[in-house]
Amino acid sequence: MSKKLKIGLPKGSLQASTFELFKKAGWSIKAQERSYYPSVDDPELEIMLIRAQEMARYVESEVLDCGLTGTDWVLESGCKVKNVADLIYAKRGLKKVRWVLAVPEGSKIKTPKALKGMRIATELVNVTKKYLKANKVNAKVEFSWGATEAKPPELADAIVELTETGSSLRANHLKIIDTVLESNTTVIANKKCLADAWKKEKLDNIIMLLKGALLAETKVGLKMDVIKSRLRNVLKLLPALEKPTISELSNPAWVAIDTVVDEYIVRDLIPKLRNAGAKGIVEYPLNKII
Amino acid sequence: MSKKLKIGLPKGSLQASTFELFKKAGWSIKAQERSYYPSVDDPELEIMLIRAQEMARYVESEVLDCGLTGTDWVLESGCKVKNVADLIYAKRGLKKVRWVLAVPEGSKIKTPKALKGMRIATELVNVTKKYLKANKVNAKVEFSWGATEAKPPELADAIVELTETGSSLRANHLKIIDTVLESNTTVIANKKCLADAWKKEKLDNIIMLLKGALLAETKVGLKMDVIKSRLRNVLKLLPALEKPTISELSNPAWVAIDTVVDEYIVRDLIPKLRNAGAKGIVEYPLNKII
Amino acid sequence: MSKKLKIGLPKGSLQASTFELFKKAGWSIKAQERSYYPSVDDPELEIMLIRAQEMARYVESEVLDCGLTGTDWVLESGCKVKNVADLIYAKRGLKKVRWVLAVPEGSKIKTPKALKGMRIATELVNVTKKYLKANKVNAKVEFSWGATEAKPPELADAIVELTETGSSLRANHLKIIDTVLESNTTVIANKKCLADAWKKEKLDNIIMLLKGALLAETKVGLKMDVIKSRLRNVLKLLPALEKPTISELSNPAWVAIDTVVDEYIVRDLIPKLRNAGAKGIVEYPLNKII
Amino acid sequence: MSKKLKIGLPKGSLQASTFELFKKAGWSIKAQERSYYPSVDDPELEIMLIRAQEMARYVESEVLDCGLTGTDWVLESGCKVKNVADLIYAKRGLKKVRWVLAVPEGSKIKTPKALKGMRIATELVNVTKKYLKANKVNAKVEFSWGATEAKPPELADAIVELTETGSSLRANHLKIIDTVLESNTTVIANKKCLADAWKKEKLDNIIMLLKGALLAETKVGLKMDVIKSRLRNVLKLLPALEKPTISELSNPAWVAIDTVVDEYIVRDLIPKLRNAGAKGIVEYPLNKII
Amino acid sequence: MSKKLKIGLPKGSLQASTFELFKKAGWSIKAQERSYYPSVDDPELEIMLIRAQEMARYVESEVLDCGLTGTDWVLESGCKVKNVADLIYAKRGLKKVRWVLAVPEGSKIKTPKALKGMRIATELVNVTKKYLKANKVNAKVEFSWGATEAKPPELADAIVELTETGSSLRANHLKIIDTVLESNTTVIANKKCLADAWKKEKLDNIIMLLKGALLAETKVGLKMDVIKSRLRNVLKLLPALEKPTISELSNPAWVAIDTVVDEYIVRDLIPKLRNAGAKGIVEYPLNKII
Amino acid sequence: MSKKLKIGLPKGSLQASTFELFKKAGWSIKAQERSYYPSVDDPELEIMLIRAQEMARYVESEVLDCGLTGTDWVLESGCKVKNVADLIYAKRGLKKVRWVLAVPEGSKIKTPKALKGMRIATELVNVTKKYLKANKVNAKVEFSWGATEAKPPELADAIVELTETGSSLRANHLKIIDTVLESNTTVIANKKCLADAWKKEKLDNIIMLLKGALLAETKVGLKMDVIKSRLRNVLKLLPALEKPTISELSNPAWVAIDTVVDEYIVRDLIPKLRNAGAKGIVEYPLNKII
Repeated sequence: MSKKLKIGLPKGSLQASTFELFKKAGWSIKAQERSYYPSVDDPELEIMLIRAQEMARYVESEVLDCGLTGTDWVLESGCKVKNVADLIYAKRGLKKVRWVLAVPEGSKIKTPKALKGMRIATELVNVTKKYLKANKVNAKVEFSWGATEAKPPELADAIVELTETGSSLRANHLKIIDTVLESNTTVIANKKCLADAWKKEKLDNIIMLLKGALLAETKVGLKMDVIKSRLRNVLKLLPALEKPTISELSNPAWVAIDTVVDEYIVRDLIPKLRNAGAKGIVEYPLNKII
Repeated sequence: MSKKLKIGLPKGSLQASTFELFKKAGWSIKAQERSYYPSVDDPELEIMLIRAQEMARYVESEVLDCGLTGTDWVLESGCKVKNVADLIYAKRGLKKVRWVLAVPEGSKIKTPKALKGMRIATELVNVTKKYLKANKVNAKVEFSWGATEAKPPELADAIVELTETGSSLRANHLKIIDTVLESNTTVIANKKCLADAWKKEKLDNIIMLLKGALLAETKVGLKMDVIKSRLRNVLKLLPALEKPTISELSNPAWVAIDTVVDEYIVRDLIPKLRNAGAKGIVEYPLNKII
Repeated sequence: MSKKLKIGLPKGSLQASTFELFKKAGWSIKAQERSYYPSVDDPELEIMLIRAQEMARYVESEVLDCGLTGTDWVLESGCKVKNVADLIYAKRGLKKVRWVLAVPEGSKIKTPKALKGMRIATELVNVTKKYLKANKVNAKVEFSWGATEAKPPELADAIVELTETGSSLRANHLKIIDTVLESNTTVIANKKCLADAWKKEKLDNIIMLLKGALLAETKVGLKMDVIKSRLRNVLKLLPALEKPTISELSNPAWVAIDTVVDEYIVRDLIPKLRNAGAKGIVEYPLNKII
Repeated sequence: MSKKLKIGLPKGSLQASTFELFKKAGWSIKAQERSYYPSVDDPELEIMLIRAQEMARYVESEVLDCGLTGTDWVLESGCKVKNVADLIYAKRGLKKVRWVLAVPEGSKIKTPKALKGMRIATELVNVTKKYLKANKVNAKVEFSWGATEAKPPELADAIVELTETGSSLRANHLKIIDTVLESNTTVIANKKCLADAWKKEKLDNIIMLLKGALLAETKVGLKMDVIKSRLRNVLKLLPALEKPTISELSNPAWVAIDTVVDEYIVRDLIPKLRNAGAKGIVEYPLNKII
Repeated sequence: MSKKLKIGLPKGSLQASTFELFKKAGWSIKAQERSYYPSVDDPELEIMLIRAQEMARYVESEVLDCGLTGTDWVLESGCKVKNVADLIYAKRGLKKVRWVLAVPEGSKIKTPKALKGMRIATELVNVTKKYLKANKVNAKVEFSWGATEAKPPELADAIVELTETGSSLRANHLKIIDTVLESNTTVIANKKCLADAWKKEKLDNIIMLLKGALLAETKVGLKMDVIKSRLRNVLKLLPALEKPTISELSNPAWVAIDTVVDEYIVRDLIPKLRNAGAKGIVEYPLNKII
Repeated sequence: MSKKLKIGLPKGSLQASTFELFKKAGWSIKAQERSYYPSVDDPELEIMLIRAQEMARYVESEVLDCGLTGTDWVLESGCKVKNVADLIYAKRGLKKVRWVLAVPEGSKIKTPKALKGMRIATELVNVTKKYLKANKVNAKVEFSWGATEAKPPELADAIVELTETGSSLRANHLKIIDTVLESNTTVIANKKCLADAWKKEKLDNIIMLLKGALLAETKVGLKMDVIKSRLRNVLKLLPALEKPTISELSNPAWVAIDTVVDEYIVRDLIPKLRNAGAKGIVEYPLNKII
């Protein structure tokens, strides 16, 4: 039997988008409804679906070689694993999720110090305790099985909860008083896996392609023709980091430019390119950028 | 403001069926999508939606007067609350759910004793530890965030998991080697609530009507006419415990029988009643039986 | 061809519940997806689906004999038709819907008088103009094609809008300052229809059965056995208006009581009946009450 | 192991309604998604899901004792089985489905005779051939795998197709020129089953309860109080076949009537009963009528 | 606070496709379920969701700077606003929607003149009145709240209704006798907005990108390699208006052609290109064409 | 009226994907819900929806010129038609579906020979009989109306059934003992169609574009820049069959490579290309490849 890399993928709400990301990167993963061992079209991979909360535990104990999870749950678990790569699902630069300390809108609590003697509900008990200790506050941390944001003020005095947009907190009339932890999707592996040259290279290649697929979601291709006399003007408008491909045309007075830019700048860039002399501007979609 | 009984109802998978049961008992409860304080058409009640796992905690700390949850989570919590009434959703007699100890089908483990040194995954960590202690076994109990039945043999050697029909266990090629705990829906209350005469009576009346509604789900009404000469034969067939209503008809040779029987015996009972002389047998649905 | 009563039923959001009500009353109506002439299992009826807003117009012009609509749209239309019967969908007594005058929460407008010179958006233009005239206020009434409650403060200074619970108004930060009109479902007919004896009787019978079906939704049947010595106590608890059926049992010391009560009093009534000596209390559902 | 009756139920479009009917009759059947052996809460029954078209084949070959299917497919199969009972899903008297001979609306074909030399598409090849032979017509019968009603005029000259309301035929611009076969749901059994006294009685009881449940779908209960002086008038209005239960009331001048009537006559009956002196008329639903 | 352009987008059936179009043009718009102020990832834009029928009213009164709506509703409103750009959702050339005058199929009405004294139902009352006046016909125009096409012949003698394919008219057995108005999506603005240089340029850029996205939906990219000796033949086949990009290859005997063509001509063009000598023809999707 | 090619497309489970494929090839087909004659945006085509099983029958009888179906059903029908082109929906090379002979897992039957006297259930009766004859086995072949895989062992001793992944067979505890037939989607036509030059060319062009669209589903475009000194290394990695387009850049030391590769090799190819010196690797999607 061929050698295999055992990788854990997060079961639950992230499962569909993770499969989608692997699809774009080049792997087709299929899960039967009740099975936790999805099939994949790569004989060198073995995949298990594991809760994000438990991923570090099974990577540390070497049941798995590596896995995708959040940095929050790695910290909470206290397990010894190595963060190999961050996979940040970003639209406009870096966007992480935050675990915040929140209290009722009308509460007198304004700082972590004021939590002394209070009840704090959270799913992230260990990280919260460490945070309180660092702030030298003595408070009661209770594990919350869910619906944490509905607990104050009756069931808890404060909460430590995950937030992306803050809208769920606002809907429950809570205000944020501190950020306890920032978190993002990460690839973790154990030492044994990283010491195995074959596994290390396999994992590196997977990460390269996952990143290429992630990058392509925020970028587009842009092609245009420019008369040589105005080429310099047009090139000045294009982002410095991405070197455009400039090719000769049959008509020697003109060149074709082909480049990759952030999708979100296109709406501002195109009017400027036209003013600078670009003709036949065409935007097209990308699958991967390495 | 009027006096109120504060009652917790289980949030999540049991929520819809609990609301349905209260509806049948006479209370209409409505929950806004993101709110945890549903409205109810009874000014003497205040309802909170709480996870079954946390119900005992908040009843014990007197945030709530009482609540509906499972006896399993009461035990797991270790909280001091009083079981006031069992609400058994039964079809044919008593049907409880079971937390069972299960191992892979081909495993050599046949008894709890054989678990020594093994990893056991479960959501019910405290009850499992107590069970192991009672069996004098030393094993590692790991909290499982879900999908527990998929863990053996790679992620755990054995599990303690809830089962109703055993089909999920079989689908994962696990076999049951012991029952750790039987559980059913229960109404719990704290001492202070039970010491308050008004709250006690309010709670008793609610329980009476919940039980009446539950009972009606498994029973039906049965009406028939019988000539008096064969009345004794027919009555012998009817269950002894439920006394039928026998009323005189205009035709003095006949009587009408109206009674309540378990729905599941009707298919066997009706052929016998016909043979015994019952005419015009009619089965009709019930809402409540007190 | 047989004689027919031509009746209009409201197309749109009320259509499903109207068909449901007729079903309970005894008529099965079926609409093809794109047809406005539903079929009905009664050769004496011809049904058309008409917008509630236009019902009065077509009853007045004798295209229809009669129709179901709201009293609000009858008034708005200004058409001359006769209100034959109110069909109030009530749970606990009379519950009508209201068209209210609403302004932004922080607005200085506190009374209709303060609307002078303002823009008022509404679907009920004529009724609103009449209301302003009665209040001797000069303001601009603009027809609103929908989403009226979102218009203040930018697109309108005040609105006249339909409300049942007020939650949509609150969500848009509006407060009610007056009720412009109360409305309920009504059966309207034109003079010619009411002057035709056959049509008049047909319509009366339909209304009787619709009301019987409506009533049954809020009532339940209640049966119990009582020893004669305590009969008076039990009867005192039952609502005076509904005369219970009391029948003799074979055991001459007991009687059976069968009665109809409002569903919403059952949860309070049953504990009292038990205390008063009732045995074998059974609640059962009803289809119609005439 | 206990004795069992092996019964086939129709797989496919009729499955859900058949399970529903058995539920009302007193048996709870549950099918796993991919299994063809549903479970049932009766140890004396073994159920298999079989296509209606193949039911007779497997009853004849004694793989099954008995089964539910249509009389059309029994005939088409040519198998030797016994029709034990008809289960007619009727609303207003007998309603069977029909296999009809249909041709394009504008076709010159007006009688079966005119089919000479034509192509006829149908799923019911054998029955159609027999029909043509009986009509002494020579034509080509082609098995149709579905969408038969779309075939004329290009793919067939005529079709023999199942119809309930005729709407699919009209939508395809076809007209019916003859009825080839009437069909209804039937219970079939083989000789061996009927010769086994235990199986015969078990099957008879099942049929009795299925029929009782079917009957109850078209009937309702009706209760009312009548002063004795007008009793005769009221009784004249009630259907002769169903003998009402008349019971004495405490008030000796009145009696209570309780009876079962066809649901579809209620809307006409109730106005007449009221005119005849009935008071407190109440309609209630039924589960079974034997 | 930064300067903002206030733009109205059509609420309702066009909302999703409008958001989609802005997405392709480069703006991500998100609407909360009950809010009418969607968020957009551009601090220079403020968006309101407004009914198409009311858009002109609020642009004229300067609540909005500009908006997207149909030319039909601009005319109907009678408001004074400027049409800045047509956004024609075209597949094969210009495709507008039409408001047509339609009568029952069998009607004797063949021309607008014949409408004298008739009842005409329409949502577009003012445009219809103007049309009748232009045709010198005296008829009654009634506002229709919907389901207009079902009104003839009972509820109206003729209708003026929107149609794209005519299928809904045919299904209601109506025939078109005249076109009252052609309409298309348009961008409107008020004078004040167009006089503000910053707003004018912002709006122009938005329109440029919306048009670029619309265009890309009907076009595709086409690449191929051609030996220089056959280049002229291949170029003759390509549409004259779109100048292809021709670039030199390493093999000096060949060139690469990259061009943009209408998607609908590709199926005819490709066989011809192959015959003319093109190799490695590849079609690829586009996002935007400016 | 213009000349038309009459083509049959498979009705049922393949319909959606066939329409999708034609869409990609350049034809937009739209089917009304109850019609079997979909519309298409090409006046030279007339489309009929026909069951795959019946396609050959109607192509042979010249009702249709040509059609898409499976080679299995062509064989089963015994009709004389010409296979014009195979349309293999492949991911990694050729992937056909198989009709296999399967028996219960524990069965003693190991070879076709052992089927003597057994009952074999299948939808492919004629092909199965031919197969048995070729194997010189005498067995009973029964037409199966569906759910064939559930029949053994009670309803059949063996089956001949279609399988793609074998998972449905495994779920029913069956094992494959032989392959009876391999099948794929095919374009069939009759002689008369192929003898008509216009129809022949029209059909050839359709096939060319269908194949181009199919091919594009498994391929992607890949662009990169390479310094000329390492060009040879990079080119060695690219598949030999697809000649990459190499174009000069403004910077004369570099060239741009644009090529088409199988999507499934990309994940292995990209790391190698990077090692070989490729920069700015971009993968983009394709619509068609001819």
